[in-house]
Amino acid sequence: MYFGSDNQAGASDKVMAGLMAANSGVSAAYGDDEWTAKATKQIQQMFDCDAEVFLVSTGTAANCLALSCMASPWQTILCHGQAHIINDELTAPEFFTQGARLVGLDSELPKLTAASLEKHLSFGAAHPPHNAEPGVLSLTQLSEAGQLYSIEELNQLTSIAHEHGLYVHMDGARFANAVAALGCHPSEISWKAGVDVLCLGATKNGALCAEAVVFFNKELAKNFVAQRKRAGHLISKSRWLGAQFCSWLDDEHWLALAKHANSMAAQLSAELSQLSFMREVWPVAGNELFMIMPKQAIEFVRERGAIFYEWPQNLLPAHIEVAEGEDAVRFVTSFRTTGDEVSGFVGALKEFSTCQHCSIST
Amino acid sequence: MYFGSDNQAGASDKVMAGLMAANSGVSAAYGDDEWTAKATKQIQQMFDCDAEVFLVSTGTAANCLALSCMASPWQTILCHGQAHIINDELTAPEFFTQGARLVGLDSELPKLTAASLEKHLSFGAAHPPHNAEPGVLSLTQLSEAGQLYSIEELNQLTSIAHEHGLYVHMDGARFANAVAALGCHPSEISWKAGVDVLCLGATKNGALCAEAVVFFNKELAKNFVAQRKRAGHLISKSRWLGAQFCSWLDDEHWLALAKHANSMAAQLSAELSQLSFMREVWPVAGNELFMIMPKQAIEFVRERGAIFYEWPQNLLPAHIEVAEGEDAVRFVTSFRTTGDEVSGFVGALKEFSTCQHCSIST
Amino acid sequence: MYFGSDNQAGASDKVMAGLMAANSGVSAAYGDDEWTAKATKQIQQMFDCDAEVFLVSTGTAANCLALSCMASPWQTILCHGQAHIINDELTAPEFFTQGARLVGLDSELPKLTAASLEKHLSFGAAHPPHNAEPGVLSLTQLSEAGQLYSIEELNQLTSIAHEHGLYVHMDGARFANAVAALGCHPSEISWKAGVDVLCLGATKNGALCAEAVVFFNKELAKNFVAQRKRAGHLISKSRWLGAQFCSWLDDEHWLALAKHANSMAAQLSAELSQLSFMREVWPVAGNELFMIMPKQAIEFVRERGAIFYEWPQNLLPAHIEVAEGEDAVRFVTSFRTTGDEVSGFVGALKEFSTCQHCSIST
Amino acid sequence: MYFGSDNQAGASDKVMAGLMAANSGVSAAYGDDEWTAKATKQIQQMFDCDAEVFLVSTGTAANCLALSCMASPWQTILCHGQAHIINDELTAPEFFTQGARLVGLDSELPKLTAASLEKHLSFGAAHPPHNAEPGVLSLTQLSEAGQLYSIEELNQLTSIAHEHGLYVHMDGARFANAVAALGCHPSEISWKAGVDVLCLGATKNGALCAEAVVFFNKELAKNFVAQRKRAGHLISKSRWLGAQFCSWLDDEHWLALAKHANSMAAQLSAELSQLSFMREVWPVAGNELFMIMPKQAIEFVRERGAIFYEWPQNLLPAHIEVAEGEDAVRFVTSFRTTGDEVSGFVGALKEFSTCQHCSIST
Repeated sequence: MYFGSDNQAGASDKVMAGLMAANSGVSAAYGDDEWTAKATKQIQQMFDCDAEVFLVSTGTAANCLALSCMASPWQTILCHGQAHIINDELTAPEFFTQGARLVGLDSELPKLTAASLEKHLSFGAAHPPHNAEPGVLSLTQLSEAGQLYSIEELNQLTSIAHEHGLYVHMDGARFANAVAALGCHPSEISWKAGVDVLCLGATKNGALCAEAVVFFNKELAKNFVAQRKRAGHLISKSRWLGAQFCSWLDDEHWLALAKHANSMAAQLSAELSQLSFMREVWPVAGNELFMIMPKQAIEFVRERGAIFYEWPQNLLPAHIEVAEGEDAVRFVTSFRTTGDEVSGFVGALKEFSTCQHCSIST
Repeated sequence: MYFGSDNQAGASDKVMAGLMAANSGVSAAYGDDEWTAKATKQIQQMFDCDAEVFLVSTGTAANCLALSCMASPWQTILCHGQAHIINDELTAPEFFTQGARLVGLDSELPKLTAASLEKHLSFGAAHPPHNAEPGVLSLTQLSEAGQLYSIEELNQLTSIAHEHGLYVHMDGARFANAVAALGCHPSEISWKAGVDVLCLGATKNGALCAEAVVFFNKELAKNFVAQRKRAGHLISKSRWLGAQFCSWLDDEHWLALAKHANSMAAQLSAELSQLSFMREVWPVAGNELFMIMPKQAIEFVRERGAIFYEWPQNLLPAHIEVAEGEDAVRFVTSFRTTGDEVSGFVGALKEFSTCQHCSIST
Repeated sequence: MYFGSDNQAGASDKVMAGLMAANSGVSAAYGDDEWTAKATKQIQQMFDCDAEVFLVSTGTAANCLALSCMASPWQTILCHGQAHIINDELTAPEFFTQGARLVGLDSELPKLTAASLEKHLSFGAAHPPHNAEPGVLSLTQLSEAGQLYSIEELNQLTSIAHEHGLYVHMDGARFANAVAALGCHPSEISWKAGVDVLCLGATKNGALCAEAVVFFNKELAKNFVAQRKRAGHLISKSRWLGAQFCSWLDDEHWLALAKHANSMAAQLSAELSQLSFMREVWPVAGNELFMIMPKQAIEFVRERGAIFYEWPQNLLPAHIEVAEGEDAVRFVTSFRTTGDEVSGFVGALKEFSTCQHCSIST
Repeated sequence: MYFGSDNQAGASDKVMAGLMAANSGVSAAYGDDEWTAKATKQIQQMFDCDAEVFLVSTGTAANCLALSCMASPWQTILCHGQAHIINDELTAPEFFTQGARLVGLDSELPKLTAASLEKHLSFGAAHPPHNAEPGVLSLTQLSEAGQLYSIEELNQLTSIAHEHGLYVHMDGARFANAVAALGCHPSEISWKAGVDVLCLGATKNGALCAEAVVFFNKELAKNFVAQRKRAGHLISKSRWLGAQFCSWLDDEHWLALAKHANSMAAQLSAELSQLSFMREVWPVAGNELFMIMPKQAIEFVRERGAIFYEWPQNLLPAHIEVAEGEDAVRFVTSFRTTGDEVSGFVGALKEFSTCQHCSIST
């Protein structure tokens, strides 16, 4: 009954098999290997587009290297107030961009709104060079709250950004889950929707450790090779990055993995909605559920082996009330989650709800 | 009728005379001159304290060099949402601190509140090293909205900061005006009130170009000399910084200059409060007035030679309503402002209010 | 017949098997997994010392993160003029240290000498803060020229460094080869010889992608966790780093791999020394040979499948003469090099020397 | 008898008078004042060229801001091994350029040679992105050794640089002395000789504290305004920079000041060459003399009020021998040096040479 994080599952068997197969023999290093070349071609095919593609080993590296190619050190980067880049990457964005500033908007909503973006940009920089001017809009798909931006929402947000001269970055750590949820083509929520640079995450969705930075706006890629080397992110035995992606991309393996994770989340959500003491913070959209639940229930199911995390209450919207005996929690499903885990977990909660000693009055 | 900025007046006659007198003969360079030594001693006397003192030429350099000695590149610096460091120094704080992050609080209030600070700090950094932890609290006295922090307010804010392990920085660009307004001893709103490092501004209050970074917490000064040199802020003919401060500090010249500026602002405020079409945003506390006034009136007095600036509406508190025909403006008085300027300006506004062609119906 | 680089072999079977085994099930992320904990303990045992240990994925990251914990941005880092950090890591050292300066010494010798170090340090910084002061000595074992520092040489160099207040960093990309060559205990050429921080490379010696930063001077480790996160080098599925090291360290697998590589190099050297037209630049010490050879011979053996690289002539010592028809080359052996490759390569060269059409007159 | 540094004289009377005159009344701030505008026009006239001009307060700021507009963080900046930027500005160049690397050439010669530059550039970057590629050539006119680059030498050096795609920066802290020495037009040793960006120093030659960054290659100026603000070098009461330059430039005041300094140095050199115990390191070219002299003589004249500095022996060419009882010294003349100071100093040395008790046997 593991619902902790999609970072804590290992890699899929197919990805591991590819890695093993790639290990034999010598091969050119530093990204000049055949697996990297093949993965690049596969990603271009996935997006039906002649993008510049670079592979790196962590999501923070992917996001921050991308941003370092998009923002000047004296510009701001607009993002949701709970975005991974502002909340979970220490000050890596400042380090890689050499001092650009993150500005968080809509912290109390589950995703960024066009109205907030429009309002922020309408003020502009009244007195340059005293004020920092916006240079990049960063969107996260799925959002940090597990929510989806629709194709329309993306188009609206990126149009506003481009009208004001901003580039658009997308943190796609759960991009595969978004494609699976929307049933769209990957291009529709990336370059066709105005995204200049996408960080395509494989790690959370079945790879061991592999992220791709995809420059649809190829001019922005000019300094990537230098920035990556300078940040120590050019891998010598680069085939192990390429090989992971080759397997992950082959035969839409990535989509199958994401669909499974999403369906497990949907099933979990459907079951939990039957329980009166469990309240959703936001509706499930991909592979994450955010709920308010009794502290006693948390304790009860943890004793029975369930693993999941509390969600910091300062990241909840203002209108969500958390009572004294409750806590906010996050459940994440992954390609490894099984139906048995879901039913086992739901069973434990049902047991809790009927248990005399632990019954609750809500 | 000049109410534009206290940056636009030249230096006081006394400061200029001191500068001239210091120019003769050769003298040691790079801060080893006798004027710098004397100014340092005078500042220690001013604060009744054995502080480490360094002189620099701009307020941005003073603030950012100070912060570079106080914050790690992976910490946050908490400040008011309209603070000069977050709003008017481009991304200099990030540059000097090598990537520390500014977090603005209480943007819609005229100064920082203990409640907001307490709330922000109570969340802490849930998952280090993923989240950036607060390292510094930066206060501005007078605040950007021209408001005063009382001795009590300062003590409360710095106590909260220190309890959470933060250092306290004070941007004292208008520190002299604050001392003049409170009638207190300089130490009472600096080190005695928990300030670790004060940037004492002379430029806005009668100097040509001179700021002092005063380390009450002397351990924090360890890297200042290296940081200053590295940022190109070590002046060769350093006597011209020292000499300005010597005159400015001599015989409480600084206090006389600030008192004059404050009294001109008070007089202006008293007169303008008689005019029904002029509304104060915040009450006058030092040498700055923020008001809402009819656009027609702005045009009318400008044609008669008045100089002052609009204040960006996104920097106003949410409850302040600005009607279609109105604008927010800022009036700043300085050591050079004369009673004639004040009465001339008020006269022009009275003329406006009685003028047939331009009368307004508010 | 592959003598290109020890970066281009894949991982050893044992390392890959360990990686596969570690993939099953969920596990804590971000370095909190059991494999990382076990590898840390194994490294402490390897060095017989309670060091702080951190795992990262590239040598550049290891070196530069270590240096970022050792040098101030206004200090210099002394190294050999051909060190990897000054020659092969772009400006990563400057990026990670936020501006410390590399100073290369002894560029025309195969390793750093005590005399040069002593001479450089004797000048000191005549006029602080105008001149940058040395803060770190960085040694590479094996050196870039494939040479060994003896225990005595290390002790002498680190003593000089410590006497002048410098910390000592060791780039140990080929540390295992050095231990194998010297037949010493790992501690004797690391902490017992005055090394404060060692970057222990596994990648070139049988791992897929794994380096350890070993802080013998534990106080220096204070900021490592923040620096690593900020540089995007904290791996989410960290078990894949830990698992590689567990296998690599188990049962002195690392030493067996290094001994093999060294013995192949020794064998190659012995054979090549029989050929009059092959001249050694430096004697073989570990797993690298540097030679001058006829261009015709290079072409001849490459046509027969040999792979190896030219060595830039500006990196050769001044006294080495390279004639018109010659080139400098580097042969690197690895854990994967076979006796057949060596004898095949030597055979091809012998064929070249007796071949009528391609015979040379040297 | 002051021959210490041209940084230790105050400003010329004319410059101070201009500063006083500019102080009255209010004026636009942050470089929008009339004096800055006028100085810009005067500098364009001085160079007969439509350059972009920016004023700053220190030489380190001028050099490093210029370099930050010319070099990428992953490039190298080639300069003489004793250049001010590599020897006397701490690690400011690294700080401003965010990590570009200085490479010093010809350390043992008094100025950079075409041969060394050509040789260094011929190697190129063998393995990008592993090696840092040269991006900028920085020349100092007068050189750090007080030597002149002729028009021909400059043309040769800048041609080589441009052929290899480098930009050319000139540190002109003593540019006025060079123009006075060569009797040429300022344009002939700047843009007509291939200089892209000149840092024109006024401070050492009669100003209080004023340097101009002159972009002949105007495209390079694109980011200057942002970089200057971000480094805290945008002066609020900017008229004091403009006013200094207005006076300094008016009626070729700068040239008169430099000619005087040079003529005093020539006179001093002529007199000292008569004394057998004084040996020139390099011939005098501008306003600096470098000599080897007996320690006893140093002591003797210092007791009689002479002020001057020892020159670090590690900055001397290898062929210069300094005996046990000798030291290398530097004499600098300035606009303030008088004939009486020169003759007084020479007199003291003559007295020394005839003095029984202190006679020397060389």
